[in-house]
Amino acid sequence: MTMHTILAIDAGGTSTRAVILDTAGTCLGLGHAGGGNPISAGFDGALASLAMATRQAMSFSGVDSFSSALIAMAGATSRMPREELSARFASLGLRGGLTVESDLLAVFRSGTLAPRGYALVAGTGSVAARIEDGELAAVSGGAGWLLGDGGSGFWIGHRVVRAVVAQLDGRGPETALTALLLAALELTPTAERAHGRSRVLLDLIDALYALPPVRLSRFAPLAFQAQGDPVARAILEDAAAELVATLAAIRLDDADGPVVLGGSILGDIAASAGPGSAGALSPSPVASALAAALGGTRLIPVRDGIVGAAVLGLTRAGVPVDSGVRDRIRNSVAELRATPLGMGTRA
Amino acid sequence: MTMHTILAIDAGGTSTRAVILDTAGTCLGLGHAGGGNPISAGFDGALASLAMATRQAMSFSGVDSFSSALIAMAGATSRMPREELSARFASLGLRGGLTVESDLLAVFRSGTLAPRGYALVAGTGSVAARIEDGELAAVSGGAGWLLGDGGSGFWIGHRVVRAVVAQLDGRGPETALTALLLAALELTPTAERAHGRSRVLLDLIDALYALPPVRLSRFAPLAFQAQGDPVARAILEDAAAELVATLAAIRLDDADGPVVLGGSILGDIAASAGPGSAGALSPSPVASALAAALGGTRLIPVRDGIVGAAVLGLTRAGVPVDSGVRDRIRNSVAELRATPLGMGTRA
Repeated sequence: MTMHTILAIDAGGTSTRAVILDTAGTCLGLGHAGGGNPISAGFDGALASLAMATRQAMSFSGVDSFSSALIAMAGATSRMPREELSARFASLGLRGGLTVESDLLAVFRSGTLAPRGYALVAGTGSVAARIEDGELAAVSGGAGWLLGDGGSGFWIGHRVVRAVVAQLDGRGPETALTALLLAALELTPTAERAHGRSRVLLDLIDALYALPPVRLSRFAPLAFQAQGDPVARAILEDAAAELVATLAAIRLDDADGPVVLGGSILGDIAASAGPGSAGALSPSPVASALAAALGGTRLIPVRDGIVGAAVLGLTRAGVPVDSGVRDRIRNSVAELRATPLGMGTRA
Repeated sequence: MTMHTILAIDAGGTSTRAVILDTAGTCLGLGHAGGGNPISAGFDGALASLAMATRQAMSFSGVDSFSSALIAMAGATSRMPREELSARFASLGLRGGLTVESDLLAVFRSGTLAPRGYALVAGTGSVAARIEDGELAAVSGGAGWLLGDGGSGFWIGHRVVRAVVAQLDGRGPETALTALLLAALELTPTAERAHGRSRVLLDLIDALYALPPVRLSRFAPLAFQAQGDPVARAILEDAAAELVATLAAIRLDDADGPVVLGGSILGDIAASAGPGSAGALSPSPVASALAAALGGTRLIPVRDGIVGAAVLGLTRAGVPVDSGVRDRIRNSVAELRATPLGMGTRA
């Protein structure tokens, strides 16, 4: 094929999305893979995910090459060896330039074409950015699970498990989170005691230390499920306050741009839940608390950064993106996602 | 030698102490080694530390065997393969029985011979125990750095580094902890920025993630050094509140026994500081806050559990320990500690 096509990738810590699109903004194929971020997946693991998503998108598009590529990735501008990346994408079919951009800019462009504004992302981690003249001007948060990431999925999940351990240990109040967490780990509460402690507490501690710490983010949904519970509600209200502080750290007093919200804790959860998926929660109670705290600000929840990565891919290739082109990207991505397996062919 | 001697060991997560004593309670030799707890050092590492401290104590005592042994160790009753332990100590010179006891009971017996009361230990971790009839009746806390240990050295150090990261990120207030932490890590604050962030913040994040998480406990002393600082003061006050809650979880309403305080955050810090050691802080501000919260309760700070391990070693060997014997243990241990290298010979 000789058609002029562009590859855009949104590489996240736990999943990666790739699209092939034409210069009118029509997405021809979508591909998925696991974590594509070198910080969490390592360079080789990240590269493997980027390549898998790319090959899938190409295969569904029916193209065997593309004229330029844009990869949106957290903190990647400093960490991904550029030559090796270019060589790998050349072998996949890249016939032109490769650009690496911040994932925060991609999230922002998934929600708006405004020249300035903010992106606030709370997934496993949490981070905020100020965008000026279409470029990243300042970043706050994103210090990772141990040092920052207030209000993130890890942060919420960590508080969930600590609250349960505290209850079982007699240090904290009763909470509905306990039954939910024990069920999630297939542990049965008993009155049995060993070494001066509750047996189920010892089993719970063993089960939780067997996980990599950052995986405590998988228990964040329990706080959303236990919404009537005062302990769970306090965790989610504190999470919203942490996210407000993260945004406030880089917000200017005369800020008039929109705030685009991304990530599983804040983003467009209804859109993220596939057809028939159970437990879809929309709007996120954290997003609601955030909206109350940021009263008057225009908040735009998005599902992820793939639409924005496509917008950036066209822009960097010299194709002007107006709202018509942007809508075409958004609608064609949504259409591909609605097909079985979340992929489709148009070629 | 045919003298009737007993080995007592206080095996901690970061250091291990062993004494050889006679049945009158006179300690003949003291030995030191690194972490002797199988949870933190692994079984082989723990065994190596126990053996090294034992050989040192034997060498300084001039004995080549001992008639019984007692090892005080956290949670060890369930985790240390007893036969392997007995075989190893037989090869070191044990001619009789081996007993493993809770380190919490040893801390308690380092401070008092009362039949009932409490031990509250805050070192790298934090844990509390109720003692009834001279035995461990209930335990709270001790769930480790990720899941519990409120008010511990890790807990304080973790809050110190998060407060500094938050300040440098613009999310938190200014604090004197920042200059102290950057100096401790030999980082120089600059105005330089990279990728929308402060360069020194990026360097700090890299330096802190390079440590095993639990090692953040090494920054706890900064909170004590920065005592005039409101952020540091709030951390230490919160730590005291966490420790009060840990104790409250296992305290009976009609409690009348003393509370023995151990560990670097709460214990007898003046005694712990060797001759000429700099930066000795006594009393600990956390201990002071705790005393205020527990008004009326008799608090007994101790340096570690070695005196109590010796008391338990004699008791388990059938030697009655009254206050005279206990004082002899305490004084002879103190005397050995005051000799160069913290060891001495009496044989």
